[in-house]
Amino acid sequence: MAPPVTVDAIDLARRLLACESVTPAHGPVFDVLEAALVPLGFHVERFVAGEAPDGPVENLLATRGAAGPHLAFAGHVDVVPPGEGWTGDAFVPEVRGDLLYGRGAVDMKGAIAAFVAAAAQVPATGRLTLVITGDEEGPATFGTVALIERMRARGLVPDLCLVGEPTSVAVLGDMVKIGRRGSVNVWIDVPGRQGHVAYPHLADNPVPRLVAALAALDALVLDEGTDWFQPSNLEITDIAVGNPATNVIPARAAARVSIRFNDRHSGESLATLVKETVRAHAPGAIVTARVSGEAFLTPPGHLSALVCAAVEEVTGRVPELSTTGGTSDARFLRALCPVVEFGLTNATMHKLDEAVALEDLAALVRIYAGVVRRATAG
Amino acid sequence: MAPPVTVDAIDLARRLLACESVTPAHGPVFDVLEAALVPLGFHVERFVAGEAPDGPVENLLATRGAAGPHLAFAGHVDVVPPGEGWTGDAFVPEVRGDLLYGRGAVDMKGAIAAFVAAAAQVPATGRLTLVITGDEEGPATFGTVALIERMRARGLVPDLCLVGEPTSVAVLGDMVKIGRRGSVNVWIDVPGRQGHVAYPHLADNPVPRLVAALAALDALVLDEGTDWFQPSNLEITDIAVGNPATNVIPARAAARVSIRFNDRHSGESLATLVKETVRAHAPGAIVTARVSGEAFLTPPGHLSALVCAAVEEVTGRVPELSTTGGTSDARFLRALCPVVEFGLTNATMHKLDEAVALEDLAALVRIYAGVVRRATAG
Ligand SMILES: [Zn+2]
Ligand SMILES: [Zn+2]
Repeated sequence: MAPPVTVDAIDLARRLLACESVTPAHGPVFDVLEAALVPLGFHVERFVAGEAPDGPVENLLATRGAAGPHLAFAGHVDVVPPGEGWTGDAFVPEVRGDLLYGRGAVDMKGAIAAFVAAAAQVPATGRLTLVITGDEEGPATFGTVALIERMRARGLVPDLCLVGEPTSVAVLGDMVKIGRRGSVNVWIDVPGRQGHVAYPHLADNPVPRLVAALAALDALVLDEGTDWFQPSNLEITDIAVGNPATNVIPARAAARVSIRFNDRHSGESLATLVKETVRAHAPGAIVTARVSGEAFLTPPGHLSALVCAAVEEVTGRVPELSTTGGTSDARFLRALCPVVEFGLTNATMHKLDEAVALEDLAALVRIYAGVVRRATAG
Repeated sequence: MAPPVTVDAIDLARRLLACESVTPAHGPVFDVLEAALVPLGFHVERFVAGEAPDGPVENLLATRGAAGPHLAFAGHVDVVPPGEGWTGDAFVPEVRGDLLYGRGAVDMKGAIAAFVAAAAQVPATGRLTLVITGDEEGPATFGTVALIERMRARGLVPDLCLVGEPTSVAVLGDMVKIGRRGSVNVWIDVPGRQGHVAYPHLADNPVPRLVAALAALDALVLDEGTDWFQPSNLEITDIAVGNPATNVIPARAAARVSIRFNDRHSGESLATLVKETVRAHAPGAIVTARVSGEAFLTPPGHLSALVCAAVEEVTGRVPELSTTGGTSDARFLRALCPVVEFGLTNATMHKLDEAVALEDLAALVRIYAGVVRRATAG
């Protein structure tokens, strides 16, 4: 049974790229997507979640089918700001040579267009849900988190989830992500008492305490890595004293630390470790942690095998299973079901002249179609 | 033999304080001083030295007498900016109660007025030279340094030098300075390679190297102090990384260190020590030192005994001989002859509502007269 409607992925990608959808995205870019999904038999629900400062955020949930194996595809229509220096206009999509240029081409309007085109190609068996947010690149407080809440409320809990982030590195299909490291940032503030360097006994320099605390943090070995994860890593990303006067002992000294960690840790356990390490050297320090995401792993199995088979079928490549790189909304979706990520090459993501190869876009449609076929077959 | 002219110290102080002589001082404030000195038999020479950025600076050299014991009195007519929040106008001198208010009242137009009044009181025996600069509070590149050069050129090398800085702490006469610690500032710059915290192997974080270097500097014991000096002291006064992004490994990390040191060290020996200590932990670091002054001591002896006797005669107090506090132009004058410093109380120096007690000003005239009498007697 052939579906009644076809979707041209390049054409849909161009229409999505023409919308200026810097985070938080809303309105037109969702209109374009909704207009593409409805003729394919999707029930589309759009809603706005949250309030300032992290909201409001627009989200879209689209479902086709009511029973059988349930695959979700997750992504975002918001993009990072284009920045200055593009060859053309970042929001006037343009094909030059074999590439389609535009902010979001690989991250990740191209992948969304490919998935919609794939959904149009395959028989509508099982259940298919698109989980699309307008805030992945921003605070992400009212994006995928709100979508997951809505899905639970609707009883829309998928069996498998594919996130369309640009995971390919050198060529399309070379990498599939089966997990992500967690991320926690810690702010350290060491108070002291200002004074003149000629009278140090009347002052209390906080800098030596901060330096001792940071040396101790730098000496920590968090772990040696696991089968699927690199060792957890701590970086001191900033120190700020802000004292312009050569003859003044400063009143405070602050630093910031960023930890990317594997599934041996939780954000909270690391926040506690940092806090205790700092306070051993700087007793009065104020230590504040913010966990951006917990580490997670979808152990290699049914879902990753299924995605890899679809990739290999189209590209001939067996993807590397990886947990490297930054965080993504997969950190939230993992609460629902097994999650893996596969998408376009990430060389130009967040950069000037972001572009997708037309050939990759076409191949991705076929790969995604292979995933949908395998995941929703009865 | 009574001198032919008398000088009222309060009146002269008021006229000096009425001149807005924030560093670099020039013109009117020197006119006032010259007009007071000429009737007392001083030969006055004014000259401008240096060019931008540390100049030009106006200076004044005044000499009375051609033979016999030679005492120099050194000081400055420039003042630090008044700042906001004075009760009255910082440059409209005003007596309220027992105090004369105005920027420079104790540091150190009051002391200059007292010395001129003292010079008017005592017989003109021996030689007396006033060494007055318009830039002591600023870079001091073309102030006392230029005056010393001029004095050498004129063959005006004194036997003893009294600097009129406000050395008294709680009450007039409680402290005389017989030396000063040296001062050296060191700038440390550790280069690295910027990157994303998720890909630390592609970056080179300079912060841990800087932290290790600073911890090593903080652990240095420079000395245990001497009979006349406190232990030398190193303070880390600033650290700057300047990285606003939580997910970015910074490209460089910088720090500044300030050392106040006694006569066991030279500025250069300490600069070398810092450089070697830093480079042991941060091999590529760029380390730049600036010596603001070398430590010096005028060992207790003839000059300090003479000043203390004059203080005790007037106040009944035996001053403590000290080397504490910041630097002063005594660091330059010591090249000419023994130097000690004695002046008004320093509680309000560089502060709002700077003021001198009228009683202190009168007592200082008598103390300075006692110093001149003792130092220039045949
Ligand atoms: Zn993305
Ligand atoms: Zn002064």
